[in-house]
Amino acid sequence: MNKSMVFKITGIILQIEALLLLLPAVVSLLYRELNIVLAFLITAVLAAVAGTVLRLVFKPKNDLIYSKEGLVIVALGWVAMSLFGCLPFIISRDIPNFFDAFFETVSGFTTTGASILTNVEALSRGTIFWRSFTHWIGGMGVLVFVTAIIPNMSDRSIHIIKAEMPGPIVGKLVPRVKDTSRVLYLIYIAMTVVQIILLLCGGLDLFESSVLSFGTAGTGGFAMKNDSIASYSPYIQWVITVFMLIFGVNFNLYYLCLIRRFRSAVKSEELWVYLSVFAISTGIITVSVLDSFGNFSEALRHSAFQVSSIITTTGYSTTDFNLWPVLCKTLLLIIMMIGSCAGSTAGGFKISRFVIIGKTIKKECQRLIHPRSVRTIKFEGKALDTVTRHGVTAYLAVYAAVLLTVFFLISVDNMSIETNFSATVACFNNIGPGLDGVGPMSNYADYSEFSKTILSFAMLMGRLEIYPMLLAFSVGTWRKR
Amino acid sequence: MNKSMVFKITGIILQIEALLLLLPAVVSLLYRELNIVLAFLITAVLAAVAGTVLRLVFKPKNDLIYSKEGLVIVALGWVAMSLFGCLPFIISRDIPNFFDAFFETVSGFTTTGASILTNVEALSRGTIFWRSFTHWIGGMGVLVFVTAIIPNMSDRSIHIIKAEMPGPIVGKLVPRVKDTSRVLYLIYIAMTVVQIILLLCGGLDLFESSVLSFGTAGTGGFAMKNDSIASYSPYIQWVITVFMLIFGVNFNLYYLCLIRRFRSAVKSEELWVYLSVFAISTGIITVSVLDSFGNFSEALRHSAFQVSSIITTTGYSTTDFNLWPVLCKTLLLIIMMIGSCAGSTAGGFKISRFVIIGKTIKKECQRLIHPRSVRTIKFEGKALDTVTRHGVTAYLAVYAAVLLTVFFLISVDNMSIETNFSATVACFNNIGPGLDGVGPMSNYADYSEFSKTILSFAMLMGRLEIYPMLLAFSVGTWRKR
Repeated sequence: MNKSMVFKITGIILQIEALLLLLPAVVSLLYRELNIVLAFLITAVLAAVAGTVLRLVFKPKNDLIYSKEGLVIVALGWVAMSLFGCLPFIISRDIPNFFDAFFETVSGFTTTGASILTNVEALSRGTIFWRSFTHWIGGMGVLVFVTAIIPNMSDRSIHIIKAEMPGPIVGKLVPRVKDTSRVLYLIYIAMTVVQIILLLCGGLDLFESSVLSFGTAGTGGFAMKNDSIASYSPYIQWVITVFMLIFGVNFNLYYLCLIRRFRSAVKSEELWVYLSVFAISTGIITVSVLDSFGNFSEALRHSAFQVSSIITTTGYSTTDFNLWPVLCKTLLLIIMMIGSCAGSTAGGFKISRFVIIGKTIKKECQRLIHPRSVRTIKFEGKALDTVTRHGVTAYLAVYAAVLLTVFFLISVDNMSIETNFSATVACFNNIGPGLDGVGPMSNYADYSEFSKTILSFAMLMGRLEIYPMLLAFSVGTWRKR
Repeated sequence: MNKSMVFKITGIILQIEALLLLLPAVVSLLYRELNIVLAFLITAVLAAVAGTVLRLVFKPKNDLIYSKEGLVIVALGWVAMSLFGCLPFIISRDIPNFFDAFFETVSGFTTTGASILTNVEALSRGTIFWRSFTHWIGGMGVLVFVTAIIPNMSDRSIHIIKAEMPGPIVGKLVPRVKDTSRVLYLIYIAMTVVQIILLLCGGLDLFESSVLSFGTAGTGGFAMKNDSIASYSPYIQWVITVFMLIFGVNFNLYYLCLIRRFRSAVKSEELWVYLSVFAISTGIITVSVLDSFGNFSEALRHSAFQVSSIITTTGYSTTDFNLWPVLCKTLLLIIMMIGSCAGSTAGGFKISRFVIIGKTIKKECQRLIHPRSVRTIKFEGKALDTVTRHGVTAYLAVYAAVLLTVFFLISVDNMSIETNFSATVACFNNIGPGLDGVGPMSNYADYSEFSKTILSFAMLMGRLEIYPMLLAFSVGTWRKR
């Protein structure tokens, strides 16, 4: 393995993080929170120094990057970023405990939005901004950002993009990797700005609009009130509902729209399944909660919001769905695992994999009826090659294995099974709130440091789709051949 | 499809069921329960008539059976058997409601052992016998029995055996299918008799020894006391612990022992993983419950019993494990899904699939590191062909899909999520008791008729490994090409 290249890029990531940390420092300065400014500046200096040292020590002989290097770079980069990203919380004493701060930061970068904080409203402005800004950075991916801005990045960096972008099939939009990354980030920035403007129109100030939009764009879920989005106006709630859905769509489709290939965009199989799951789930829940809300429009608003929030793995809430009928809670728990489209900022198993799995089951049934027939599986109009197809079923296996392992490990804290299971599902799929003890009006504070660490790694595994973390932390990867 | 052959064999199954029903009739007669005798005789006559009519109406032109016919025969046969098997409960008024009686019968044949009865001890002797006898019939499979005793059965009946026997790889022990079935049943009978003798030595009478042995041999779990096995002596509990484990082993290994190929038997990979899961789980639980039992030997006895009972999907219990620490309950919930060895009488996902999935994950990781390397997966010393390998991962997909669907459907009853999830896992994997509302000291009585029906089909899907049920109830299977 090209270790020097791995550590060099980790160094670049830390240097970029140092720059990004200046933004919350400026915000803190504007709000005259001087000790918070200091916390961000100290961290920025530490990250810059660490990054520079890594780049000085590791001088790669060549810039060859293969699949393996891509996976390891992404895993190490994200862990390093989280380790430095949690320092402002600790230095400012807003979250004095390391495990809590690490959990909160990983939850931010991985766009999970699970929190150990019991009172968000007591936080300083700078800390609130940084929490939500980590969502925005993590949403599209820091390495996509790196490949977009580093001048002489080779096209081999596609291996890094592939490791960081979610979904079973990752390709380039345009011939050059750098341009692909730039297009993705421009779409991301543009849509975030549009949402900020719409929230400003709803009467929020720039700070609050930005914070909520970062949480929406990254499909994260950190808000700035203890009751999440419950106390905002219906207009704000509807804007967020729609934008969560928008950020859960494969960004390739927006690119297709940009180059005026609307027809290709609209024909996307994944898009329609995604919207169908959203519509059907919203319908079922609206009917189930109609009685408790009294009128249809309110029931629809809360149902659409919660479904949109859960399916896109954002995790905002407008009401305590933990009090809803078990049918609704079960449905939410299931769509937590399905997630949104590949190539979006959302987490979960991904709709595309879900569709491919469905077709695999159908094919397997046909094989049993007609053992000699050979049929290919088509997805998005193209025949799927066997490597991708078996990759998807193998992903299901590793997904289930991680899910059950985390579920078992955190059971040492003796919280209820519903709490543990939903906490595992909510962290691993990067949603945030779960049910029972970790419901939308509760938080993860009651878990032990051991469980918080396990859940932090579950979030990283979920965001990076498991393999980078598995490989980076296994001995075989580092051994010389 | 060769429909005539499908219905003809369904007819044979009903005729055999009519004969089997005479046994509980005799038992009832011995205990002078005359109205119960009548219930069994009426059912026997009805089953015999229905079976004979089917055989008279359907005269197949040829006895060709392919994979498709095998699957459909097994599904229809099991549903027909359950429909007639529940009549004695209804006629005798021991379980007057049809949905309850159907649930109880399916639970019997599928060796699940989930019950809707609140007071088992109030049942007549004949009913208790029939409940447990259905476990014994379902354990090794009624179609294996059919192929063993029908004189001129063609070797094509291997497709039926394959559809009924659990596990990813089903082969013949001996060249002829009929002889394979006979060998399996002889081993099964011999081991059941040995257990009955050992229980007699423990001071139980022949009736109680037989009932408990039927429940153990079929890995079913219906007992004759409300507290399951809790009030029996430690000796009885240990005998049952060991025999549950024995019946969870692949019967092929016993055949290998019979023909003195001990070394091949002991080398079985599946056996060692099975015993390791048992030993590790027992160890973890023993340590966790040590405080509550006070002394090591008691903690070990209860832990070993519960783990053996759950991993073999039997479902007997010696204590209310619903009151154990969450760590123990979570572990039991997870091993419910793993299950025992393929080719045993137990349910669940099966250890062999579990091992193959583990190796698939490892292979997928290696593929990511070295994309061009081609490695085969070995299981039990042989390279696995791709069809089997992909069949296993596809099975995981369909397994997960059924699990989540059932979990969602039964949530309409508004029972707790822990109850619903564990009920789904416990029925689908043919265990019986779950947690919370369906824990070992509770039962399934509180579920609605709708949910009981869904859970009944979940049990059938679990016992027959999904595909037979899926195919038999899909239109495409019956359509002419």
